[in-house]
Amino acid sequence: MVQDELYMKEALHQASLAFSVGEIPIGAVITYNDTIIATAYNLRESLPCATAHAELLAIEKACRTLQRWRLTGCTLYVTVEPCPMCAGAIVNSRLDRLIYGCPDPKGGAVHTLFQILSHPQLNHHPEVIAGIQQESCANLLKDFFRQRRQKKKGSLT
Amino acid sequence: MVQDELYMKEALHQASLAFSVGEIPIGAVITYNDTIIATAYNLRESLPCATAHAELLAIEKACRTLQRWRLTGCTLYVTVEPCPMCAGAIVNSRLDRLIYGCPDPKGGAVHTLFQILSHPQLNHHPEVIAGIQQESCANLLKDFFRQRRQKKKGSLT
Repeated sequence: MVQDELYMKEALHQASLAFSVGEIPIGAVITYNDTIIATAYNLRESLPCATAHAELLAIEKACRTLQRWRLTGCTLYVTVEPCPMCAGAIVNSRLDRLIYGCPDPKGGAVHTLFQILSHPQLNHHPEVIAGIQQESCANLLKDFFRQRRQKKKGSLT
Repeated sequence: MVQDELYMKEALHQASLAFSVGEIPIGAVITYNDTIIATAYNLRESLPCATAHAELLAIEKACRTLQRWRLTGCTLYVTVEPCPMCAGAIVNSRLDRLIYGCPDPKGGAVHTLFQILSHPQLNHHPEVIAGIQQESCANLLKDFFRQRRQKKKGSLT
């Protein structure tokens, strides 16, 4: 869907904002009625707070915007496959759809380590689409970690 | 451990505060160096916010108190087995220990539906103790749902 590509572009922009403040570059967008109602990026180091992942911050903003905890009718776009915490928050918030960019081989909880969004005993199963702008999402992460390694190397010489 | 019983009592007190404002009665406490540094109870309906579970609110408070996202050296006490979101937040915050009261047969993500805290590919495995004051924790939930059913019945007659 063209719309999905457009909103993932905005999620990528959010991820680049995380990059610019030295955070692992992951960004998220939530839409409702084809309008963006929340944007966020990873702020774990800046706050500092262990729960300040892009998806969680976006879900909290969307709840404030709609003044309800059920995000029925909403779609979450995120550049990377959600971790267990964020996948659990997607179930808890009853989001209709999740669109993500690239897989997370180390902690992904939608397809990789766990399949939280499709567990038969959980009471909510959102539609999931993976791989939208996968390469751009993955490249941003690769650039970030490459730069971080170079900085570390530089500080050792 | 006597201390574990004492801190679970405070978590139960937090759960009773949730009960008194009409929230599903779940409470949490985080300790560091044998001192309580965060308390919280479920506020999903009151805020309203899908992520406002007792554990997540307590983790966020503890990060603010210690001004770091790594909660190394801390123990989380919670009256009910954490859901996937909260179990994921425990991994993300590197908490040393989790002590919980009663299991959650519908959504528990520590022993029941998932075993998030012991997954071999996740990078953190806290010590877990289950069943501390299990009956009191479960009874509070039972009382809450019984009262809610009676109120619903009352409003229908």
